Amino acid sequence: MSEQISITLNGAPTTLEAGTTGTTFFEDSPTVVVMRVNGDLWDLSREIPADADLQPVDISEEDGLNVLRHSTAHVMAQAVQQLFPGSKLGIGPYITDGFYFDFDVENPFTPDDLKKIEKSMQKIINQTQTFEREVVTLEEAKARMSDEPYKLELLGVRNEAEQAAEGAAMEVGGDTITLYHNVDRRGERVWSDLCRGPHLPHTKLIANAYSVMRAAGAYWRGKETNPQLQRLYGTAWATKDDLKAYKERLAEAERRDHRRLGKELDLFSFPEDIGSGLSVWHPNGGILRGEMEQHARRRHLAAGYSYVYTPHITKRDLFERSGHIPTYEEDIWPPIKMDEERDEAGNVTKQGQEYFLKPMNCPMHILIYKERGRSYRDLPMKLAENGTVYRNERSGALHGLTRVRGFTQDDAHLFVTADQLEDEIQGVVEFVISLLRDFGLENFELELSMKDEEKSKWIGSEEHWEAATNALRNVGRNSGLKLTEIPGEAAFYGPKIDLKVTDAIGRKWQLSTVQVDLNLPERFEMEYTAADGTRQRPIMIHRALFGSIERFAAILLEHYAGAFPAWLSPVQVRGVPVAEPFNDYLADVVEQLKNRGVRAELDDSTERFPKKIRTASKDKVPFVLIAGGDDVEVHAVSFRFRDGSQENQVPIDEAVERIVQAIESREA
Amino acid sequence: MSEQISITLNGAPTTLEAGTTGTTFFEDSPTVVVMRVNGDLWDLSREIPADADLQPVDISEEDGLNVLRHSTAHVMAQAVQQLFPGSKLGIGPYITDGFYFDFDVENPFTPDDLKKIEKSMQKIINQTQTFEREVVTLEEAKARMSDEPYKLELLGVRNEAEQAAEGAAMEVGGDTITLYHNVDRRGERVWSDLCRGPHLPHTKLIANAYSVMRAAGAYWRGKETNPQLQRLYGTAWATKDDLKAYKERLAEAERRDHRRLGKELDLFSFPEDIGSGLSVWHPNGGILRGEMEQHARRRHLAAGYSYVYTPHITKRDLFERSGHIPTYEEDIWPPIKMDEERDEAGNVTKQGQEYFLKPMNCPMHILIYKERGRSYRDLPMKLAENGTVYRNERSGALHGLTRVRGFTQDDAHLFVTADQLEDEIQGVVEFVISLLRDFGLENFELELSMKDEEKSKWIGSEEHWEAATNALRNVGRNSGLKLTEIPGEAAFYGPKIDLKVTDAIGRKWQLSTVQVDLNLPERFEMEYTAADGTRQRPIMIHRALFGSIERFAAILLEHYAGAFPAWLSPVQVRGVPVAEPFNDYLADVVEQLKNRGVRAELDDSTERFPKKIRTASKDKVPFVLIAGGDDVEVHAVSFRFRDGSQENQVPIDEAVERIVQAIESREA
Repeated sequence: MSEQISITLNGAPTTLEAGTTGTTFFEDSPTVVVMRVNGDLWDLSREIPADADLQPVDISEEDGLNVLRHSTAHVMAQAVQQLFPGSKLGIGPYITDGFYFDFDVENPFTPDDLKKIEKSMQKIINQTQTFEREVVTLEEAKARMSDEPYKLELLGVRNEAEQAAEGAAMEVGGDTITLYHNVDRRGERVWSDLCRGPHLPHTKLIANAYSVMRAAGAYWRGKETNPQLQRLYGTAWATKDDLKAYKERLAEAERRDHRRLGKELDLFSFPEDIGSGLSVWHPNGGILRGEMEQHARRRHLAAGYSYVYTPHITKRDLFERSGHIPTYEEDIWPPIKMDEERDEAGNVTKQGQEYFLKPMNCPMHILIYKERGRSYRDLPMKLAENGTVYRNERSGALHGLTRVRGFTQDDAHLFVTADQLEDEIQGVVEFVISLLRDFGLENFELELSMKDEEKSKWIGSEEHWEAATNALRNVGRNSGLKLTEIPGEAAFYGPKIDLKVTDAIGRKWQLSTVQVDLNLPERFEMEYTAADGTRQRPIMIHRALFGSIERFAAILLEHYAGAFPAWLSPVQVRGVPVAEPFNDYLADVVEQLKNRGVRAELDDSTERFPKKIRTASKDKVPFVLIAGGDDVEVHAVSFRFRDGSQENQVPIDEAVERIVQAIESREA
Repeated sequence: MSEQISITLNGAPTTLEAGTTGTTFFEDSPTVVVMRVNGDLWDLSREIPADADLQPVDISEEDGLNVLRHSTAHVMAQAVQQLFPGSKLGIGPYITDGFYFDFDVENPFTPDDLKKIEKSMQKIINQTQTFEREVVTLEEAKARMSDEPYKLELLGVRNEAEQAAEGAAMEVGGDTITLYHNVDRRGERVWSDLCRGPHLPHTKLIANAYSVMRAAGAYWRGKETNPQLQRLYGTAWATKDDLKAYKERLAEAERRDHRRLGKELDLFSFPEDIGSGLSVWHPNGGILRGEMEQHARRRHLAAGYSYVYTPHITKRDLFERSGHIPTYEEDIWPPIKMDEERDEAGNVTKQGQEYFLKPMNCPMHILIYKERGRSYRDLPMKLAENGTVYRNERSGALHGLTRVRGFTQDDAHLFVTADQLEDEIQGVVEFVISLLRDFGLENFELELSMKDEEKSKWIGSEEHWEAATNALRNVGRNSGLKLTEIPGEAAFYGPKIDLKVTDAIGRKWQLSTVQVDLNLPERFEMEYTAADGTRQRPIMIHRALFGSIERFAAILLEHYAGAFPAWLSPVQVRGVPVAEPFNDYLADVVEQLKNRGVRAELDDSTERFPKKIRTASKDKVPFVLIAGGDDVEVHAVSFRFRDGSQENQVPIDEAVERIVQAIESREA
């Protein structure tokens, strides 16, 4: 009998024969695709070492899906290189819900090419190829990759951080490199790549639940001066049903895409004449945004915030002092040189004062605090502003309202004493949840970003960090929401809590941030006089609840697929007469509604009735009021709702009351 | 008997002896100081010509006061040159309520100097000097002014427009120049200046109702590269009572100065770290501004305006196309060069895209209009925005909130058909008057700026101009307000109506403008489909009611001397307990008020009662509620109002109701 070794399996001690591979050990569990050994992911084909902390990884869990997707990427790359001889490999990592691979090919891929590649992949999968791991020296790796110029370039990159940034596709460990080979049934290596792994045991696990989705240009290593490669995006899932569900989610997300709905509902646009990433809000969008701001304003005032107003530009010094320019200058718009003078040749003869578009509001709120001496009686001071800020996003990164170059923060800064910190954080967290619920959001979770105890680049004392982190943690725990603690995620100036919300189709959005700041009060030498007469430094809390008003509007738009609750709807009621003789009758109802503050209008156009109904449906008007002979007879109107259901002959007074009620309750 | 000539006197025909001077003709009217001959002002000492259209000008009317002030300036200059031998003359025109004179002197004037100058002036006045007019050639004028380098420089300036800009102090007429001399009782010319005149007959008319007010540095001809002169400001009035009233108005204006009140009431500031002319609004100011904006918003929505939002920056092209950059580039902040690239030596290797801070909102609203095809059914389209704009005001011109480098327009643009023009203008004028009345302003007048028929630099057809001017005039006439028509004051792109308001101390402020624009719709090729299917161009109306929200806040602040009506007051109610034991009782009243939406607070500080009352008065809190034993006994509070009056033992419920009522009515 051979040697037995001890390991723990899912935390429980057990023994097994030395030399056993994962393949053997988990052979009765066909959906286990890799194993976690002492926290690292390993191929099943490797031997399980003594004292291992071992866990099976199922194809359906996150790590399993990532491995599945990365293996599918390898299969796709093999197919591409077989179909397009001479094509060269870039990198090919897994990403959320899928993977991509970059190729240097003569021509961009056509939709036909994508179909051919999928077909070719299916053949490879049907062959039940295996993925083989091989550890070689750097020299050997260079020899093997001699035909792949991009891989050779990567092998020349010896900086670990840079390697990591280049993608997960290769192993870096001292002088050894790992390669992975696609191996056919005859045992022949038919395709190879530098790769950190691990991979599936074999291609059969790809299970026909994959798809090559689309192609796009991508610069090698993300730099515009490098050659442009062709990137193929794909996806892979544990089952065909999962793939189908994913494609439905994609279609649903496409249907809800705020850029599309924004155009259809005439809410906003990005005029080319103004510039990329700068939104203008049309009358309909102005109503939505106005209602959002008005409601938030009322709630903020009731919660004791004071609104302030600050300019959009400032002299350089302010953001030098705050540290924003030294640290984030590339994210700030370039300066305006005011009062600069030049001679006729264009040379600067007098240096101007540099002004910057503000990337944040905080330093200006600090200046307001500092406008007079403050005492403990002034604290907590809660300054709020809908402050429009500008950031220099790369034009390639811009996306609708969610990545823009100018946006309005529903910003606030609380200046508090140490004693007030926890209560005020608690107040903020309760406030944000309550406010977001007003907008119909329901599913929240919290993430606490903490200091990484092993690193040292933090400002502020140990006690301050501990107090602030404890305050955030206590509030998080008391909230009853799921709380995830993430060590090492804190900024250097203090811990924070982020609130994430899950939307109607299950997507998570990071919205609100509550950030404790131990740095700026120091930099700006902020003070207050304590009850005992001593000079003390306040603690600063940054918080934005929507984050960006524009982005939050986009999220609501996608969450509701444009069918906003009535209080947020640009048009709340549209009167649609069955025929022209009922125009005046309905006009009167519309007038009654307007007098109650309802955004009501009459469709008295010359279109036919069914067309008007379709238009109202397309416009996602919450209440369509219809009037025909039956309605007039009993002094009533008929409701048609967005789900197509109808309620006939509702007395006018009751109809008005119900609508007003629905708007005020912020429901429906 | 000598020859008789015919003239008209105040429009009535009469005759007089040829050779009669004004002095003789008006000798029985001692307050007539000059005469108007065929529309021009003449010295009384000149002979009245045949066929003259003659009017006497009294010292108390505007033209008379201007002459008085200009003559006083001459007396002051004589005094200065006698007291400070070697001092040289700059210019010395009359201005609103007074005059100034610039001098090149060795040292700036001290307060003591000002007193000496006044004393010396009094001696001159007591001498009953006369003012003598003399017409000379340019060469002769240069010879007489050989000791006055600045006057010689002016004599070299032959351009009439430039002359005019330099001040009213000299006559330009072909090759002749007029000089004025101060002549003492012995008939000796004791002081002379280049001057257009006219002047008082003699110094006795200055009547001891004058004052040398203050000194300030001023660059020669307003250019920073020129020598700095010392400017003496003075004032003169027809009577001592008028002078006294003027000084009281000045003191009152000083007491109401919004810069001072803004600081005292903690409303706003201009932090040096941000930059000149850029305001930040503190919590108290934020309440005032918020209430102003909220009220205007409600009214705008009710009046059918749609709020839109546009960015603060745009690519250069938009303002090129609108014509703003070609015409007003110096008033716009310098550009941001986005995506510009430079080599290590700092040379530009890639031209960036130029972005500008918007100086106005109009072109962006036009882009919203143009986002889709428009039909007559979409018109009138009324787009409103609280749009913050930035303008490059010279730092020397900045003044509190009334001249700034960044401000928020309560802007709107109406796009209308020709048929709708008059009704929409009427609507706007009625709307603005009604809105300004809401803010407690009462005295309005209108000014219609029209085309100057003699000039030709106008765009748009004759019919359009006529229609637009008629529409404005009709609305003006129907308004019942005083309407002044000013030919030649229109911009090249259309006529406008301005609304001026008179404040609590009689000062006039230009507030709202309603501008018809025939130009931008053309430049941007705006269109709509008319009912008959043809493509038509809309007419554009620009209008801002407050003008600038910041400036309007300043005007209100000065109008009310900081004692705002309750609805605009940052703190509406302050509870002041007679002594500490009544804190809780009043806290409860304050809470009741807060629950009704009132901005109420309790002064539970440890200060003594009289000090608290003084503080509340300084803070201009409209309702101070006092509670002591007598109040508690009958479940009441005592009111103390801003005028110092008091009303004791008002039952709490009644007190709350009265306060809520006062706020809602926007009175008190």
